[in-house]
Amino acid sequence: MAYFDAASSAPLHPVARQALSASLDEGWADPARLYREGRRARMLLDAAREAAAEAVGCRPDELTFTSSGTRAVHAGIAGALAGRRRVGRHLIVSAVEHSSVLHAAEVHEADGGAVTQVAVDRAGRADPSAYAAALRPDTALVCLQSANHEVGTEQPVAEVAEGCRAAGVPLLVDAAQSLGWGPVEGEWSLLAASAHKWGGPSGVGLLVVRKGVRFAPEGPVDERESGRSAGFENIPAIVAAAASLRAVRAEAAEQAVRLRELTERIRARVPRLVPDVEVVGDPVRRLPGVVTFSCLYVDGETLLHELDREGFSVSSGSSCTSSTLMPSHVLKAMGVLSEGNVRVSLPMGAAEEDVDRFLDVLPGAVAAVREKLGAPVSFEAAGEADAVVVDAVGRRCPIPVIELAKVIGDVPVGGTVRVLADDEAARLDIPAWCQMRGQEYVGEEPADRGSAYVVRRVS
Amino acid sequence: MAYFDAASSAPLHPVARQALSASLDEGWADPARLYREGRRARMLLDAAREAAAEAVGCRPDELTFTSSGTRAVHAGIAGALAGRRRVGRHLIVSAVEHSSVLHAAEVHEADGGAVTQVAVDRAGRADPSAYAAALRPDTALVCLQSANHEVGTEQPVAEVAEGCRAAGVPLLVDAAQSLGWGPVEGEWSLLAASAHKWGGPSGVGLLVVRKGVRFAPEGPVDERESGRSAGFENIPAIVAAAASLRAVRAEAAEQAVRLRELTERIRARVPRLVPDVEVVGDPVRRLPGVVTFSCLYVDGETLLHELDREGFSVSSGSSCTSSTLMPSHVLKAMGVLSEGNVRVSLPMGAAEEDVDRFLDVLPGAVAAVREKLGAPVSFEAAGEADAVVVDAVGRRCPIPVIELAKVIGDVPVGGTVRVLADDEAARLDIPAWCQMRGQEYVGEEPADRGSAYVVRRVS
Repeated sequence: MAYFDAASSAPLHPVARQALSASLDEGWADPARLYREGRRARMLLDAAREAAAEAVGCRPDELTFTSSGTRAVHAGIAGALAGRRRVGRHLIVSAVEHSSVLHAAEVHEADGGAVTQVAVDRAGRADPSAYAAALRPDTALVCLQSANHEVGTEQPVAEVAEGCRAAGVPLLVDAAQSLGWGPVEGEWSLLAASAHKWGGPSGVGLLVVRKGVRFAPEGPVDERESGRSAGFENIPAIVAAAASLRAVRAEAAEQAVRLRELTERIRARVPRLVPDVEVVGDPVRRLPGVVTFSCLYVDGETLLHELDREGFSVSSGSSCTSSTLMPSHVLKAMGVLSEGNVRVSLPMGAAEEDVDRFLDVLPGAVAAVREKLGAPVSFEAAGEADAVVVDAVGRRCPIPVIELAKVIGDVPVGGTVRVLADDEAARLDIPAWCQMRGQEYVGEEPADRGSAYVVRRVS
Repeated sequence: MAYFDAASSAPLHPVARQALSASLDEGWADPARLYREGRRARMLLDAAREAAAEAVGCRPDELTFTSSGTRAVHAGIAGALAGRRRVGRHLIVSAVEHSSVLHAAEVHEADGGAVTQVAVDRAGRADPSAYAAALRPDTALVCLQSANHEVGTEQPVAEVAEGCRAAGVPLLVDAAQSLGWGPVEGEWSLLAASAHKWGGPSGVGLLVVRKGVRFAPEGPVDERESGRSAGFENIPAIVAAAASLRAVRAEAAEQAVRLRELTERIRARVPRLVPDVEVVGDPVRRLPGVVTFSCLYVDGETLLHELDREGFSVSSGSSCTSSTLMPSHVLKAMGVLSEGNVRVSLPMGAAEEDVDRFLDVLPGAVAAVREKLGAPVSFEAAGEADAVVVDAVGRRCPIPVIELAKVIGDVPVGGTVRVLADDEAARLDIPAWCQMRGQEYVGEEPADRGSAYVVRRVS
């Protein structure tokens, strides 16, 4: 069994387990109490805060523990927006933020606020100048992830922070994917992170608010954690989170080299081993352990099942929308193929032989799915009609693209195929297929049900 | 060392510790994932939900896990109010709810909602007919605790629930203090609870929303826990919470008898051992392990320090406002003495010899504090002037009452003492002292700084 989904949740680090067990006996009392048990709990909490602050690179009184990374993001965005309400209600986010950021932005918009989504390039990277251009006099807050959770692309946080600082606007960094690897560089104002992403326990997030940043906690008053995180402190888990952050940081440099080598191997070999694959995400400026690729003519969920049967736990598409049929908002924003998407995110310590076995198994797994779906194996030009219509209405991804691929050889060069489809993924995947195949994507037209996607054969 | 503050946080139950350790290896993965590790996490989560639901007496799909009892209360009140926004924006709470409920009510009021606080009697008990009288056509939600966290008084939840049901208004029960002892009776609609109160781990609350109750989760969308609790599930802690709830329930009947006997002993003996003490809370309809009393002429915090030095961890006043100088809102609503307040809340398994030693130590501890503060030991009538003025402006509780007691013997029967004070506690404690001492509280008048409290000597 090989677990290759560390970007969702990392296995508990041995240090986290040890610290958790050790602090269960001393960490259950109320740290606000002045008696012996309360004082012991307070000491554990204070020590954990100092350790975590050192790892983040902030003052202990700037750091509060929340109950999850999601809560840290929600509380951070709401508090920063409320703190700068007089300035305005404009929020800037990138199009590839984690769903917790985008959902917080939705709430802000529904409440009358304004939101600008900054686009990303095909590698998933946001452009600092696009961020700078999005700033307005009424901008209250800017959000940018340190690295993308689906494709691993690192974002230019320091540059964006510089632009924000010049404009006097705070920048909130979602550092969930990167904090285990190192502190976030640049002059950011707020930072959110999640312990279970670095091998800490569930139930602990970090919210850092730099001194001088205007912040007004939202929701009912609660005096714990500087009023920024309501509810009784989960001290054993907090201790485990801080201890494991130090532990993974001590291993980070060595592990980064190892995992980068392994993911580089996947990046290089997958396109050679599996036909019709697009590896996505920035090839250089990326997290050490993450590599993502999409396979034409493949249904992501079926492929995940095949890989699970072979003993590999990987993920597909956006981590928080896997139960819906919508394609991942990240892949969509990048404009890359979303069908047959696989994210491999190696935990620290992942074994080389597991990666090699994954590369052995993958081609067969993809082929099996393609065979089930009746995907085309090769092109056989036998064209006659100048224009062919494919009716894929009611069919789900990847069927519309498979049907397109089957008939493209039936029209002469210069002829067109109209694909009728009502699956949302087709809008993304048919243009992506055209780009991969060197065919011309003419455009989308309304149809009786769904849309007609017109493709011209050019080769 | 004896820990007598279970109502703040109970020591971790051995079953909780065991379940937590056992599920750390299987509970770290994302239960939304379909691969092996995700499926195992999902199974643990489902099993915990079933066990917890059985203990609560609800359907598993009515129960969600939150990150704390406070979060359960906040989310439950906000969601129920939003779900019934069309009906109206009137919220009813008792005056002695936990601060999490009252703070949620404050936010609702600040947002334009209406809040009615139902008064309680001197025992801290809310009257079902007062609740019924507070209902209005625009009442969206009613809140009542199952038992009070400071004085242990059980509330008439089933009767209040009946009145709510007849009016078609949902009742939210804060069951934080009682759920370990048994299910909440009556036809309530929503329920909130906190695992660390019953010996479960920190980081887990329960929110139950009965089928058919209109509920609209507030805050950013998140698909975990039926959309009612944002953030990655803390499965090991959830497993430990459910397992320990079952475990404490199995011991509840026997422990209730034991603890009731021990608290009855404290209730009966403290007034005999310590002069000028008022035991507060309902003597019969109360939690088995909680007993609360207030000591005249004593500063609660100093007394807690004395008791801590003797090896006893107890609490004073309201659990969530101990760092402020305001007297507890619960004692205030009950109209009982707040100074020198001590809450003893025995954990399950508390040792009889510890209770007896507490009773041995208490009189000396109280006497030591009184001596430090220069409190009167006995009455010596040496009256002359018809009216005496005591200037206690700038002096904190319990000094104003001590000064009053020192001079009351200096005026003849029928004469008055004016106590000038600007400490908030005086408003509560001077009338309470009069009631305990059989003197007449004439009233409060504005003064240059603070107020003048007028007391007539009648005996």
